[in-house]
Amino acid sequence: MSTGRIERRYDHLRALIDGKLASIIRAREPRDLMEGSRYVMNAPGKRIRSTLLILSCEAVGGQMKNALNAAAAIEMLHNFTLVHDDVMDNAPSRRGRPTVHTKWDLNNAILVGDVILGFAYHTLLQSRTSNIRRAARLFTESFVAVCEGQALDVEYERRPFISVREYYRMVGKKTGTLIATSAELGAIVGNGTPGQITALRTFGKHIGRAFQIQDDLLDVVADEDRLGKKIGGDILEGKKTFLLVKALKRARGKDNDLFRSLTARRGRSMPPEEQRALVKRVTSRYEMCGIIEAARRQIRHETAAAIRALRVLPSSNAQAMLQWIATMLAERTH
Amino acid sequence: MSTGRIERRYDHLRALIDGKLASIIRAREPRDLMEGSRYVMNAPGKRIRSTLLILSCEAVGGQMKNALNAAAAIEMLHNFTLVHDDVMDNAPSRRGRPTVHTKWDLNNAILVGDVILGFAYHTLLQSRTSNIRRAARLFTESFVAVCEGQALDVEYERRPFISVREYYRMVGKKTGTLIATSAELGAIVGNGTPGQITALRTFGKHIGRAFQIQDDLLDVVADEDRLGKKIGGDILEGKKTFLLVKALKRARGKDNDLFRSLTARRGRSMPPEEQRALVKRVTSRYEMCGIIEAARRQIRHETAAAIRALRVLPSSNAQAMLQWIATMLAERTH
Repeated sequence: MSTGRIERRYDHLRALIDGKLASIIRAREPRDLMEGSRYVMNAPGKRIRSTLLILSCEAVGGQMKNALNAAAAIEMLHNFTLVHDDVMDNAPSRRGRPTVHTKWDLNNAILVGDVILGFAYHTLLQSRTSNIRRAARLFTESFVAVCEGQALDVEYERRPFISVREYYRMVGKKTGTLIATSAELGAIVGNGTPGQITALRTFGKHIGRAFQIQDDLLDVVADEDRLGKKIGGDILEGKKTFLLVKALKRARGKDNDLFRSLTARRGRSMPPEEQRALVKRVTSRYEMCGIIEAARRQIRHETAAAIRALRVLPSSNAQAMLQWIATMLAERTH
Repeated sequence: MSTGRIERRYDHLRALIDGKLASIIRAREPRDLMEGSRYVMNAPGKRIRSTLLILSCEAVGGQMKNALNAAAAIEMLHNFTLVHDDVMDNAPSRRGRPTVHTKWDLNNAILVGDVILGFAYHTLLQSRTSNIRRAARLFTESFVAVCEGQALDVEYERRPFISVREYYRMVGKKTGTLIATSAELGAIVGNGTPGQITALRTFGKHIGRAFQIQDDLLDVVADEDRLGKKIGGDILEGKKTFLLVKALKRARGKDNDLFRSLTARRGRSMPPEEQRALVKRVTSRYEMCGIIEAARRQIRHETAAAIRALRVLPSSNAQAMLQWIATMLAERTH
């Protein structure tokens, strides 16, 4: 498949999912709840998880139309976590739009999150598949893991140090699970063989990791305009990203002091000029200590492992697109 | 069945459900999340919904052990709503124990609610039934309805007047659905006939209403010590209970002015003495306007309708116990 054709097909799938999501919440009452839910569901997004799900279904020989409900459900599960996470992180905006608790209030944000999750299950349970129990179980495990990942994130914030292993555990649950589940669930609703289902779960697990490390990296090296937010936010927040966790492990002497000082999270209350200087200094030390390169290497490694996992699948357009998505996610600049 | 035997069986079921609930969350990490979840799951409760579910399963000829997962799941769905509702209502305590957001914080309360819901689905999906899709769909509809009911409750608080019909719609979703679902879900996991499933849904719908009106009534007429909280709370809060909604519709002149003044919710910030005087005055006017009697009549009416619905079921101990529970709920004093 040519890149042009792949991109057109991706846009087509995205439009299908957008349409499906827009059709789910039809009720007008209770007003704030339904308007809030539609506001979230209609937010523009890359629809990565739902696209992965549909392509994984097709890659095992399943039909797209049988995957559409599960695809919308996984996108809604993702959106449910965003609404509640934004409350917990006290985030005023997301992708340039006010968050639900900012536009309405805390109560509506809690309820909007809850009800979107309800509609997610409602939609998932409409899937035409011979194994709805397995599909719903996997979906549920993923939902529980995301909650656990978010709780670990909160817990780790209070600790001065976490290991690389703990980092992987946390982001695996918080970000990785949902991406891995998207691929696996697609294979399940597509009635894939056990080997195919395992392959797609492995694929999802690796691109989930690559995706998160790339996210951590972009906070430092991205083009601010294209990213749509200031870079260095994680540095000022003292967030335990792949970069910081790796740096804390690797750096010695003054560098280690600098990295350790970030975890006290004093950057948040600095005047803008000092913030810029701190971000610049930390970025340069990340560079010098080889942390940026280590992150890039790890992303390449995970992406290669993801693509290797696809080999057991029969050659198809869907398989080619999955490979393209893995590469695109690892190379994205925003 | 003698009352003594019924009570012993109820205690036995309650202990079984308590045991099941205590066994579900075994993980120790993330710490706050898991401790918070166990704190909620181990809270003492009447286990009305789960008992109804098991008895409904038995009343259609199903086996208790096949209903235990669904019973625990419905109890957890109920607890999920309590944790999030307590955040929204800013409630410091529930049944004499600090609420989750008071004992921990807002973030943990949101996550504990979410993860309990996750475990609820996890447990439900372990049910041995030939129709897991139907069971999970009903469970999900109920979950969505509870969110909608809570949102309506918030919405109605801002309005000076709601109709009796709107009252029924709101409490039907907020309280009634879960009780009706408990009975219906029991019939489904017990593989009941369509007629039996309908009968138990009808039964549940009516006792759900009776339960809520009794709840509203107890705020005014209960024995404070046995209720475990001050009476008149709803009056001071200007809560749109069955009593207030009925009174707003029925009363004229000065009485109407008094009832209408409650909806401004000024009672909350009055000094204790004025609060006591207001509660006393409103209670006496409820009495004089026949509102207390109207509530009692409605509870009797709903309870009779519930018991009538049971007639299509074969005579059994479970059926006798369901009848006993309906009567007990309507006559409870706390």
